[in-house]
Order: sequence, then C-alpha cells, then structure tokens
Amino acid sequence: MNLFIQRHRRRSGSGAMPGTITVQPHAQAPCYHMMSFGPQATKGSIENIAFDAIENLPSLPEQHEFMWVNVTGLGDAEALRAVGKHFNLHPLVLEDIANTAQRPKVEEYDNYLFVVLRVPVLQPLTEEDAGEEVLTTRQLALCIGQNFVLTFQEEEEAALAPVRQRLLQQKGKLYQRGPDYLAYALLDAVIDTFFPLLERYVERIEEFEAQVMEIDAHGGIKTIHGLKRELLILRRIIWPQRDMVSQLLRSESAFINESTHLYLRDCYDHSAQLLDMVETCRETTTSLVDILLASQSNKMNEVMKVLTIIATIFIPLSWIAGVYGMNFDPEQSPWNMPELAWEYGYFTALLLMFVIAGGLLWWFWRKGWIGSRE
Amino acid sequence: MNLFIQRHRRRSGSGAMPGTITVQPHAQAPCYHMMSFGPQATKGSIENIAFDAIENLPSLPEQHEFMWVNVTGLGDAEALRAVGKHFNLHPLVLEDIANTAQRPKVEEYDNYLFVVLRVPVLQPLTEEDAGEEVLTTRQLALCIGQNFVLTFQEEEEAALAPVRQRLLQQKGKLYQRGPDYLAYALLDAVIDTFFPLLERYVERIEEFEAQVMEIDAHGGIKTIHGLKRELLILRRIIWPQRDMVSQLLRSESAFINESTHLYLRDCYDHSAQLLDMVETCRETTTSLVDILLASQSNKMNEVMKVLTIIATIFIPLSWIAGVYGMNFDPEQSPWNMPELAWEYGYFTALLLMFVIAGGLLWWFWRKGWIGSRE
Amino acid sequence: MNLFIQRHRRRSGSGAMPGTITVQPHAQAPCYHMMSFGPQATKGSIENIAFDAIENLPSLPEQHEFMWVNVTGLGDAEALRAVGKHFNLHPLVLEDIANTAQRPKVEEYDNYLFVVLRVPVLQPLTEEDAGEEVLTTRQLALCIGQNFVLTFQEEEEAALAPVRQRLLQQKGKLYQRGPDYLAYALLDAVIDTFFPLLERYVERIEEFEAQVMEIDAHGGIKTIHGLKRELLILRRIIWPQRDMVSQLLRSESAFINESTHLYLRDCYDHSAQLLDMVETCRETTTSLVDILLASQSNKMNEVMKVLTIIATIFIPLSWIAGVYGMNFDPEQSPWNMPELAWEYGYFTALLLMFVIAGGLLWWFWRKGWIGSRE
Amino acid sequence: MNLFIQRHRRRSGSGAMPGTITVQPHAQAPCYHMMSFGPQATKGSIENIAFDAIENLPSLPEQHEFMWVNVTGLGDAEALRAVGKHFNLHPLVLEDIANTAQRPKVEEYDNYLFVVLRVPVLQPLTEEDAGEEVLTTRQLALCIGQNFVLTFQEEEEAALAPVRQRLLQQKGKLYQRGPDYLAYALLDAVIDTFFPLLERYVERIEEFEAQVMEIDAHGGIKTIHGLKRELLILRRIIWPQRDMVSQLLRSESAFINESTHLYLRDCYDHSAQLLDMVETCRETTTSLVDILLASQSNKMNEVMKVLTIIATIFIPLSWIAGVYGMNFDPEQSPWNMPELAWEYGYFTALLLMFVIAGGLLWWFWRKGWIGSRE
Amino acid sequence: MNLFIQRHRRRSGSGAMPGTITVQPHAQAPCYHMMSFGPQATKGSIENIAFDAIENLPSLPEQHEFMWVNVTGLGDAEALRAVGKHFNLHPLVLEDIANTAQRPKVEEYDNYLFVVLRVPVLQPLTEEDAGEEVLTTRQLALCIGQNFVLTFQEEEEAALAPVRQRLLQQKGKLYQRGPDYLAYALLDAVIDTFFPLLERYVERIEEFEAQVMEIDAHGGIKTIHGLKRELLILRRIIWPQRDMVSQLLRSESAFINESTHLYLRDCYDHSAQLLDMVETCRETTTSLVDILLASQSNKMNEVMKVLTIIATIFIPLSWIAGVYGMNFDPEQSPWNMPELAWEYGYFTALLLMFVIAGGLLWWFWRKGWIGSRE
Repeated sequence: MNLFIQRHRRRSGSGAMPGTITVQPHAQAPCYHMMSFGPQATKGSIENIAFDAIENLPSLPEQHEFMWVNVTGLGDAEALRAVGKHFNLHPLVLEDIANTAQRPKVEEYDNYLFVVLRVPVLQPLTEEDAGEEVLTTRQLALCIGQNFVLTFQEEEEAALAPVRQRLLQQKGKLYQRGPDYLAYALLDAVIDTFFPLLERYVERIEEFEAQVMEIDAHGGIKTIHGLKRELLILRRIIWPQRDMVSQLLRSESAFINESTHLYLRDCYDHSAQLLDMVETCRETTTSLVDILLASQSNKMNEVMKVLTIIATIFIPLSWIAGVYGMNFDPEQSPWNMPELAWEYGYFTALLLMFVIAGGLLWWFWRKGWIGSRE
Repeated sequence: MNLFIQRHRRRSGSGAMPGTITVQPHAQAPCYHMMSFGPQATKGSIENIAFDAIENLPSLPEQHEFMWVNVTGLGDAEALRAVGKHFNLHPLVLEDIANTAQRPKVEEYDNYLFVVLRVPVLQPLTEEDAGEEVLTTRQLALCIGQNFVLTFQEEEEAALAPVRQRLLQQKGKLYQRGPDYLAYALLDAVIDTFFPLLERYVERIEEFEAQVMEIDAHGGIKTIHGLKRELLILRRIIWPQRDMVSQLLRSESAFINESTHLYLRDCYDHSAQLLDMVETCRETTTSLVDILLASQSNKMNEVMKVLTIIATIFIPLSWIAGVYGMNFDPEQSPWNMPELAWEYGYFTALLLMFVIAGGLLWWFWRKGWIGSRE
Repeated sequence: MNLFIQRHRRRSGSGAMPGTITVQPHAQAPCYHMMSFGPQATKGSIENIAFDAIENLPSLPEQHEFMWVNVTGLGDAEALRAVGKHFNLHPLVLEDIANTAQRPKVEEYDNYLFVVLRVPVLQPLTEEDAGEEVLTTRQLALCIGQNFVLTFQEEEEAALAPVRQRLLQQKGKLYQRGPDYLAYALLDAVIDTFFPLLERYVERIEEFEAQVMEIDAHGGIKTIHGLKRELLILRRIIWPQRDMVSQLLRSESAFINESTHLYLRDCYDHSAQLLDMVETCRETTTSLVDILLASQSNKMNEVMKVLTIIATIFIPLSWIAGVYGMNFDPEQSPWNMPELAWEYGYFTALLLMFVIAGGLLWWFWRKGWIGSRE
Repeated sequence: MNLFIQRHRRRSGSGAMPGTITVQPHAQAPCYHMMSFGPQATKGSIENIAFDAIENLPSLPEQHEFMWVNVTGLGDAEALRAVGKHFNLHPLVLEDIANTAQRPKVEEYDNYLFVVLRVPVLQPLTEEDAGEEVLTTRQLALCIGQNFVLTFQEEEEAALAPVRQRLLQQKGKLYQRGPDYLAYALLDAVIDTFFPLLERYVERIEEFEAQVMEIDAHGGIKTIHGLKRELLILRRIIWPQRDMVSQLLRSESAFINESTHLYLRDCYDHSAQLLDMVETCRETTTSLVDILLASQSNKMNEVMKVLTIIATIFIPLSWIAGVYGMNFDPEQSPWNMPELAWEYGYFTALLLMFVIAGGLLWWFWRKGWIGSRE
Repeated sequence: MNLFIQRHRRRSGSGAMPGTITVQPHAQAPCYHMMSFGPQATKGSIENIAFDAIENLPSLPEQHEFMWVNVTGLGDAEALRAVGKHFNLHPLVLEDIANTAQRPKVEEYDNYLFVVLRVPVLQPLTEEDAGEEVLTTRQLALCIGQNFVLTFQEEEEAALAPVRQRLLQQKGKLYQRGPDYLAYALLDAVIDTFFPLLERYVERIEEFEAQVMEIDAHGGIKTIHGLKRELLILRRIIWPQRDMVSQLLRSESAFINESTHLYLRDCYDHSAQLLDMVETCRETTTSLVDILLASQSNKMNEVMKVLTIIATIFIPLSWIAGVYGMNFDPEQSPWNMPELAWEYGYFTALLLMFVIAGGLLWWFWRKGWIGSRE
C-alpha cells in the first residue's frame, strides 16, 4: 500500500503529447489565495485575499512589489492552463504540477525557477483502523519569479500555515524580503515537518529495541519490514530533496539573491541531518533483524532442549521397565529372570531407575544443558 | 530463459572484420515507411508512405524539410547496407543496428547522432503457457541527422504508434519541429512504456507482500528469484538509458536544438523516476526474502513444537505403564509390587498418569509453549 | 537511548523564523571566561578572567592582540543574543549554537569562520547502574575571527583544559600565534579525545573475540548490537568531522594562515586514522556475528546429537524387551515364544540387547558422531 | 587452483633491480614472425615471414610502410633483451612482458604505447579429467609504435589467427591502415573471445536454475562457489580491460589516429557489455544460493515432519498398550483393570487406538501438515 | 591481538603540544648508518659508514653528491630531535616518525618530501607457540631532500638489505642516480615484500578450500575470521599505500625527477595488483563461509536423519509388541486376544513386524532418504 510515490497516480497516456495536463483522480477543485508584500510594505498592509479564478487575480497594492499566489487543489486542467498562461509557464511545468508524482527537483526556466517538494503526511489507513496510520507524501510545486511566488498544493498543507502567519502578522523581515526568501521560508517549513516524523520513527525503533527479547519473531519481522519500507520512502524523498537544495545553492540563478544563500545553506544542513537520521534508522533496523532471528532461534532451542531432555531421561527407564516386563519363565530355568523372585527385586529395579535418571540429570547439569539458562 | 540481452543473439564471429553485418536468426524481412514534415508543412500534407526498397525512397514533398524513414525488420543484410550507403552511415553503426543486443547508448558521428534504445516486451512464454509471460527487450535504433530521422525496429513497436498518429493528424507542434524533436517524442514514447510495466511489478510485489504469511516458502523464494531477475534486466536497461539521456542533454551536438533540451530534461526525470521505482522494488523484494524465511522457520517450529509436546507428555506415562507391567513376583516377597494387589491400585496408577500429564501441560502452558501461538 | 544526536534536543518549532534561538531543556546558565594573547605577549601576562555578562567583557591588555572568549552553558537565549550582537554573529549561527544537535561543519561568514565540533562523552547510564556507561556527544561551537576566538560549550569540556593550561603557562608558541592556531589546538584536543575512546572499543571487541566460544549467543548478539550502535554514532560524527577538517584545509579563508595548514593536515590525518579504526571495528563486529551464530548452532547441534543418540540406542532395546513381554501362550503351541522357556533365554535376550547397543555405538563412533567432538 | 593471475608466476626477487627479466617456468622458447603492410601495399604482397632471431628480422619490402613483429614464447631472457634493444624498449616494459602476471593496462612511452591484454583460456584440468576444464588467462603484450606493432604471446593464441588471415588475404582495409588499426583489430579479437566464454557461463547458470529444486544443496553450493570464483577471475580481467580501452580512447597519443577512435569506442561498448554480463551472472548466482538453502531446508523439514508424525501417532497408542499390559491383579479387587475381563475389552482397546490414530491424522491434515506438500 | 595498527602504540597525551615526540615503549636505541653516492661516484667508492650520533655524521666524500642516512631504532627522543635539527625537519614530521602508528602517506614540505610506509612482518605469536605466526606491520619513514634520503626504521628491516647491497656493489645505475630513485628503490623493495606474504594467504585459502568438506564448521569459521582480519589489516595498509604512490605520481614536487615517474608508475601497478589480490582473497573467504555453513547444516541433517529413521522404524514395532503384551484375559472371552493362542501367533506377530519395518525402509528408500547420501 503506497509503496511508491507513483502508485495510483494517473499519468498521461504513453506517447501523449508533452505538456498534456492529466488531472489526478480525486483531485480537488482549485481555490486561490494571494498575498502581496515588499520592502516598502507598511505595517498592517498585508492581506490574504481569496479569489475564484486567475482572471480575477487582484492587482498589487501600492508599495507592494511582490506577490505570493497559492493554488490549492489541482483538479481542474482548464484552470491550471489559465494560471500557466497568466504567468507564462512552460507546458512541461504544468504537466509536472498536475501529475503529482514528481521527485523533488529544481529546474531553471528563463523567467522563473520551478521547484518540486514533497510533504510527508501520516494518513489513517482506513476509517475503521482508527489507530494505525500510513505514511504518504503530497507534492508541493513552487515557481519563483522576479516578483512572484506561485505555489501549487494538492491539499492545504498545515506545514505552510506558520509561514503565512509570519507574513500576515509581519513578524521578522519575511514581508520585506523578496520572493526567493519567501520560497526559502516555505522550503524550510516543509523540511521542518520531517523532523517530528523521523523522531516518531526513532521512538518506534527504540521501543522495539527495548522489547526485542519478548517479541514474537514473525510479527517482529513484519514490523521491521514495515519500518524499513517507510524509511525507504522517506529516503527516496529526502535524498533528492537534499540534492535539490544543493543545486539551488550552487545555481547562479538570477532569482536567488546572494543574501538568501546563507539561509539555503541552513536548509541543506537540515536535509543532511535528516538523511543521517534516516540512514541511522535503516542501519539499526537491519541490525535488529539479526537480534530478532537469534532470539527466535534461541527460544526454539530452549523448547527443544527441555522437551528432549525429558524424553531422554525416560527412555532408559522405560527400557528397564520393559526388561522386567519380559515373560521369560523362571520356572523353566533358574537363570530366567531370577530378579523377579528377589525379595527386594522391585525396589532394586526402581532404585536402578532413579539412579539412572539422577545420573543423566547430573550429567546434563554438568554439561550446562539444564539449570543455567544457556 | 532470456536472462541476458545477449542470449540467443548471433554475433559476428570472433575476429570478424569490424562493420560485418550479422543478421539475427528469425529476423524479419525489412519493410520501409517514410513520413515527411517541416515548419512549412500545411495541414493534411503529412503522409505515411510505404515503399519496398531504399532506392525507391520517395522524394520530399515541397515545403517539407524533414523526413522520418523507418525500417522494420532487420533480416536482410544487403538492404541494411543499401540504407547505410544512402544515408552515409558508418559500417560500425550498421553492425550495431543488425546485432540487436546493444545496450542503450548515444554516439556522435559527423553527420548524425546514433542512438540505441531498448523497448520492453512481455511475451507469452510458450504457446501452451497461455497465462505466463516473460520479459524481453527489443532494440530500437535511431539516427538523427540534419534533416532526417532514421529508425530501425526489430518488429513494429506498438509504443511508436501514438507518435506516428500525432504526426499524421498534425496534433500539437510535432510536425512543425525538427528531427531532434521527433527523436525526443520517440524516446519519450519508449520511456513511457516502462511505467505500466513497472506498475505491474509493484502490484505483484504488493500482492506477494499481502500473502507472504500464507505462502509456501520454497515457492515464494522461486517467485522472488524470478522477480529479482526481471527487475535486474530492467535495471540493466534503465540505468544506461538514463545515462544516455543525460549524455544527450550535456552534449553540444549540432543535431539537438537548444529548445529541445527542456524536453530531454523531462525525459531524464522520467528515467530517474523509473530507476527509483526499480531500486525500490529490488530493495523490497530483498526484504521480503527475510520475512519469507522467518515465516518458514516459524511454521516448522510450530510443527515441531506441537509434535514434540505430545511425545513428551506420553513418554513418562508410558514409563509408568511399563513399571506396572513388570513381572516381579508378589508371591515371592511382599515388597514386590504390592500396588498390584491394592484395591484401587489401577485407579491410583491412572490418576498418577493424569496428574503428570496435567502437570506437564500446565508447565508448558505457563512457559508459553502452548495456548498462545508464540 | 540516545541513538541519534538529535534525540531529546528541542528544535525551533516547525515554520519558526530562521534565527530563532531555542534553548535546550536542562541547559546550564552561561558563565564567561576570557584569555588574551598575542605575538608581543610577555611572560606571565596571560590570565584567565571570568566575567558575568558580555557587557562586562574585559578589554584587551596592552600588547595583547587576540582574545579567546569562552561561553559555557547555553541556557540563556538573551545572553546568547547579547554575545551575538557584540561579535556581530549571524542569527543562523546563534540558532545553531543554541540548538546543540548540529553535525560537525564549517561555514564561512564575512567576518568569521563558524565551526561546529562534537565532543564524545561517556556518561553513567543512571545513578544506580554505576558500572555501565553510555556514549553521548556534546556540541562545541567555535567562531574564528580576525582577532578573536569564541567558543560555546554545553558544559565545561575536560578536553579543552590542557589547551588552556598551555596558554596560561605559555608552553610552546601557542600564546604567540593567532586565533587560527588556537582554533587548531582546540580542534586537535577534541580529536585526541576520540583515541582513548576508540581504544576502549577495540579492547571490548578483542575481549569479546577471545570469549566468543563461551558466550551465550543471544546475549552476544545484544552486546554486538550495542557495540554496532555506538560505533555507528561515532562514525556519524567522525565522518563529517573529517570532511570539515578537509574543507578547512581547502578553504582559502583569510582567517586561516598558510602556516597553520600544516597543522590542519595533521588533524586530517588523525581524523582519517579514527575513521579507519571505526570502520575496522565495524567490519570486525559484523564478522563476529557469524562466529557467534555458528557457535550457537554448534552448541545446539551437540545437545541434539547426544540426546538423540541415547534415544536411538534404547529404542531397539525397548522393542526387544517388548517382544519378550508379549503374552503369546506357549502352552497352546510349541511355536509360541519357545525362547521364554529356554534355560538361558533371559541371558540370550540381554546379550542380544548389549550386542545391538554395542553395535550402534560402534557405528556411531565410526561415523564420527561420538568420541570426537565434531 | 589458479584462483589468481599471479599464482605460480615467478616474480623477480624482492629488491631486485627494476627491469630484471625473470623468465617464467615452463615458458617456451621464442619464435618470430613478421608481416609487413601499408597504404601502398599491392595485392598479394603481404607475407608471413618466420625468422629465428631478431638480428635476422627481414627488412620491409618496398612500398610497405608498417610491420607487425610477433614473438611467441617468452622463455629466453637474452632474446627478449635483444628485441628490446632493437625496438628501443624500456627495461620496465621488458620486465612486464616476461612476467606474465600483469593486469590489463596501457602505458605511454615516448616512442610507443605499451598495452597488456589478457586472453581467457579453458584448459583441461588434468590429463585424466578429460571432461572438466578450468579457466586461466594468458598475457598478450603489444607495443604500438609509429611504424610497427610488436606482439608478445606466451603461446600462439587462436584468437589472433583471424586477424592474421584478414591481413594475409587482404580482406577489408586492414592491410592499408596503420599500426593503430592493427592493434585495434587484435584488441577486438581478444575481447571477442570473451563472448562465447561468458555465454557458456550463462548456459551453466540457466541449467543450474532449471534444476535447482533437485540439486543436492551441498554439491550445489560447491558448484556455485566454483562459478563465482571463475566469474570473479573474469571480472578482475574485464574491469581493467574496459578501463584500459577507455584510457586509450581518452589519451591524445600520437600513436592512435583520430579515425581509429570510432573503432575503439566500439571496443569499449563491447567491454561494457561483457562487464554487464559478468555482473548479471554474479548477482544471479548470489540469488541462487538463497534458493538452494531454502530448498535444502525445505527438504529436511519434510523429512523431519513425516518421521515425527509417525512417531507422534504411535506414542499414544503404545501408551494404551502399556496400560493394558500392567499387571494389576483383578483378582484382588474388582476395580483392578476390569476391562481385561470384558467380553469385547480387546476390541475396545484396539478401537480406541484406531480412533486416536485417526483423530491425530485428521488434526494433522486439517493443520496442513500432511496431505498437502507444504 | 594487534587488530589495529594503533594498538599498544603510545600517543602523545590528549591536548599535548603538536610536535611532541612520544617514544614508543620497547623502542630500540638508535644506531646510524650513512652511505654516499652520486653520478660521479667511482667504482668501489661506496661505503656503509656507521656512526654513533648525528653530530658525528661523516662528511660527503669528494665526487659524491648524495647521501642516504639511516636511523634504526626510535627509542631516543633527544637523538630524534637532533636529527630533526640537523636536517631541518618540521616538529610534526618528527612526531610522526616517533609515533609509529601512521598510515602510509606522503606530505610535501618546503625542503623535503615526507613519506611513511608500512612493512608487513610475520612474528611468532609467543615463544611457546613456535609454529604460529601473527601479522603485524612496522613503520618506515622517509625524508627525500634535494641531496639526501633519510630513513627511520623501528627495527632493521630485511626488505631494505638488497637495496643496500645494490648500492654497495654498484649494481645497476642506482648509485649514479639521485635521492628520488633511491627512495623509489626502497619503496619498491617494501612493496615487493607483500607479494610472498599474500601468496601465503592465497595458499592457505586454497588449502582451506580443498578441505572445506571435512572441516569442523566451528573451527572453520574461526579460521576464516582470522584470515579475514589479517586480510583486513593488509587492505588497510595497501589501500593508502597505493593512494600514496598515486599522489607521488601526480605531484609536481621538485624532489621527484621526471625520469623517476616511469618507475613510480611501475610501483603503482604493483600496488594495484596487491589490492586486487587482497580483494579477491576477501571475496573468496566470504564465499567460503557459505559453503562451511551449508556443510555444517548438511552434516547435522545427515545425523538427524539416520537417527530419526531408526527411531521411526522401531516405534510401530514396539507398539505391536505392546499390543500383544496386553493382559486381556482370553479365558473371560473368546474375543480377547485370540491371537495369543494361535499356533503360529508369535511368528505372525514377528512377521508383521518385519513387514512393517521392511515397508518403511522401502518407503524411505523410495523417497530418497536412505541409500543415496542426500
């Protein structure tokens, strides 16, 4: 379920024209928001204006140089085409925006940078399985132009809300800086959502580690397989995300000011930390499989040993009982089982049995097969 | 069966002259098609003209600058040589076209680019095994010149049909652009055929994952081995295909216009996505082997445990029965098995047995060997 | 517990403004020290002056050109901001100083170099577990300016004490050289703390190796898992630490004099040695798992073999006893168990049993299943 | 047996002077051949002239510009030195020619290129083991000068015969081109000998794959180990051979004409194909080990299961028989085993046994332990 | 024992001044030798002059331009400092010379090149274990100046003796060439000592391979673990040694003449060959573990099978004996065990037993569990 980004995403048919916009099933209808800002923006002048079609995009307020236009919901190909036309986007960019199975990447175009991010989401598996959650990712596309930032979200991402708040409330200098800094802030917010997620994985691994002795091996392997798969998904996103930030850093695009580079370097550091965490998690889970299998094998060995010891002790005893159950006829010959007629024959036989049982127990104990757990 | 591209392909004999054209066994006789196009091409002027030999290649219609010549069936060395002569192809290129075991690659020559692609095909294994299919690949060779595109197919590939349709019906701008864009369209169409194929593998893996608990380990290992092999084949094609696109992107060949680079970058992205999917599939199958083996071991352990428990319980009981089956003679001595003459001796013995059996069962249950599944 | 650097560190909330200083829980209140030095410093003129706030930073004594300002305890955001303002540090730098979960790195700013190191610490696991220790790391941040070195420690690191002593006692030329050389001395001191630590791991591995035959497999796997995890932590620190030194070496920063490069090369060598040791430890532990599992399997096999041999020998004997315990009536027919009436029937039966037991023992011995340990 | 190239090769003693020629044991006495060719060579003028010492090297026929001098048999240090002197070869080159354990490589000298190739040979293991063959490699050294090609063979290689034929019979343009093209032809011929060899390995692996279910695990592991070893040998040759061709391609040596580059690129492609095949073979054999072990484990499990089931069924039956074999005296008490005196007591007991046996069989069948193969 | 180079080496204390000379425990007292040579050196003029302190270093004989000063024994820090002062060596170089745990490396200083090599040594493990040897390495440090070569040995290395002989006896041109060529000769001599060593490992592996079927798995794993560890040590030396030679080759140091480059390339080839051998050994040992474990598992299976078969055959027989040992009273009912009174009842019972035993044997044989070894 959801092993790959691409699953259950509809692609343009094979051999389709490049730039064909293929709307995903269940994609939402678009809704639009616009915020304007700029170095001369006065206090309280920032607003979050919703509008219903790109033709009705409000014009920039005076003294506001830059705008952030956000489109949430990619379910209307026509609307996307209109946005593309308005901002002069390349058809391939529009195709990538609509087909929400892209890997994180950055592409330079003449009048904007196109950036694809992936936002991790924990979704409840089904309505019934209230407790269980499954890891998926959603796509967030950005176009960074000279005086605008365009964002395309599949659904309203909670991760972007704090950035919007900072802009609205004019905290910090975000509202006075350019589109590149806004893009950085969005990128940083997305990367930050990975940390609590990964910490949950770390916790799950550490819990697992603490219990590994008690865990049923088979169920444990399934749990680890699940963990590995989700870590694999994360790695497949975080790795190109890091490369993408590094490419942004090294690019000499006109859309990224020199002063923003420091901040991108910070993003790169965070991405590298994330990758580190994912890799550490992966190596640890791999090592846990060894423990789990050794533990399973150990338990089985213990079972076999106890049971076999019991069997082994009783087998010679049964043999002795069998011997004295033979019907050789003492009347025919004095040599035929004279023990049967001894006064203490029965006790002798029982004694013999206990001696043998005791001897075997002592021998097993000396060999370390019983008593000590090993 | 078809583990490698090269199997069952006939190569030129060792030490043969370079450029020797070695026709593959079962290769088809060639048939030729030509389509012309160009920036000035008027509506409805595009035609798909079949012809029977390269000498009869129709001339370009007026206002059509470019032509796409397609050769399907590589079974005639003489005909290939004629095509090579007509388009001034290097003997090594002709050798590579005829020996359909090449890896994806691009080579620059003075007056054309030579590109080799591989098209994945699922073929029925044999006539009887109607259901089962086996993955093979066929070679598609392209020569991209200043004003022509030459394609050489082993068999008519379904993947190219949509491109031909787009050209014929003059959809999009394909018919107005140059040979490089046509080559891109063909390349894109070939890469797109990998997606549904890989999605079938993803589905097979997810099905397998869902059933892994019920699967017979031995059969499961064979299934995974099969999957791994086919994924290995795909990886061995997709990897050099991606490198080839990357080389095209970086090359400064005169045969690739600047404007086509954007589209090739898109191809590169798709190739990278494919590689990602293949690698994820491979890692997941590897992890499945662990589950499978743990599951097999678990089942065996369960069998052994149940059986051994039964044996262990009855062994002490049999010993008691054996003891009271001994023939010590109570008449010779009052100490010889007086229990035999007790009024409730038999019941005492049976009770003893049930107590022992019950005690063992209780002990096993407390140790967790019975009752809970673990 | 402490699997990752980042665990239990508080990060700025997701979407927080860059440069937000987030104080770690349990972080200490800051205390400040200053030492001044320089090429003209006279004997005995170096002092270690404590002060209580950055505003009270003592001025440089005459003839002293450089100062080393140390802040221990990062528990006061306001104080950190004051230090940042005084030395003109970038907000991102302050954020990284306070959030003590950074990987080792070097960043160039206009008027200083920012270096993050990690110091390994063995902490007692809990108050009770007096003997056991757990590996953690603490962060040490350096800012190297034209005429100052700033250090930020979470707690007073013992590793830095010798450097302070060398400076105070004016041993060597440390007190006459610049901030870059002091930074090198601190870096070298930190790297040197890894050697005894790694040697402890080497000793633990060698001890383990010597005992591997006697060790309980399950406990052994846990020990190795623990070792691997701590080595993984070390590797995740030493690897970027080496890269950081290499970056310092290759940087052409104005803050690192040419003459210090030789010394940094020495640091790089030591880091490479450390990495070598860690990798060798890791490969050796991996190989130890094989021995451990083979040893476990061997022990189990030995148990099973001994026990099964005993069972196997007695089973035919019990059968013979059973045969002669049958109640066929010799009185009804002379063919019914005439052996029972033989004079030496009983001895014959016992003899038969001993012959069979002896024969089996001889056969097992010849097959090498008993006698030799294999 | 022949695990490494270097085994059983005699090297110059440790600390020997560089350039010391150390003749291999069993090396043959040299014999010399010369062929001349060139752009002006007329039809039928090419001859293959044998001669007995380098002093008697025939002079070039008129209009022949280039010569190919071949030395087969490297058993005479003096003769090698003479050749070296005649062609002005560096002592290190002569040492490498005589010590036939070199890896494939290319080295540029002032007046020639020195190239080492390795030719794979399948040799019968011993005289008796007529069927079995073992893979070894022999060294082929080339010196490519401005107007000569020198080849040094350990034994006459069959792989070179077709090239000699093409030259003699003046097929193609080989006889009109320069030494670089001749060297390419020889290189190509050597690389071509790897293809049938690798195809044999592919066949062996596919045969093995088809039979893997029936194969004895232990023998199978040995077979795979053998395959892996030989594939390892091949990889250790093919890898540097590919690098060597790539180095030739990138070198700007005056001894390689621009026009030959196309042909070398073809060689490079072939080498890459070979490496691909070797790697695929290696990955497939690795995956086969898994199947083999799972198959072995499966067979053993089946054995254990059948046997244990039989034992488990009879154990309770034997207990019942034991119970009714007890000697409690019915005469002493009516409660002592009254069943013994029942009219149908015996049949009841037998019936009870069959019911228990049947019940157990049914239970085992329902649990899937008998009946189905799993 | 000796798992790492650094073990049991004393390092300067943590935080010590750079350039602190820390003498190793058990290091010998130094003794000095000097040899002079040069292009104008006449026959017989080379001498090996011992002296007792660097102050007494003999002056160069006339017409001798270069000198080789050798210091054996690094146990005297004062003496090392004196040598350092005389040849103007950097304190860090002296520290590295004394701390004999360096990895192979090359460092360029203004007036010399500093090279560290490691010489492999097989030392008897202890006095008692006469036969067993353990692999260690010793450090050899070289300083190559304009007109001198300085060597520092821990103990007199046998590997250098042939070079000394060649110089003394004026064999070859060694005595006429410069310090760089002498350094090459020493480097070559050290690299050559690895070959016989590695060939011993190859022999041990091949011996092991030949016996792998007979070897006790547990001991075998320990042997392989030992081999792997020693190969790991070799790899950790040979790898940086190769890189060091490559760095020498690529460096444009004034201390290495152009003409010596050819010889260094030869050294590089040898190092690459060594690495190849080590890697092949490592891969082969890894593959041997698989065989060993499969072999162990196979043997155990065989034991279990034989034993279980015996048990399984006798269990039904014992049951039959038990049945006819039941005491149902034939006198009470004609249906109670009438077989007991049959004339051939006993023989029938015995026959039944043999038929069952035979049937089981036949069934086991048909299933392939007995008879064939598998």
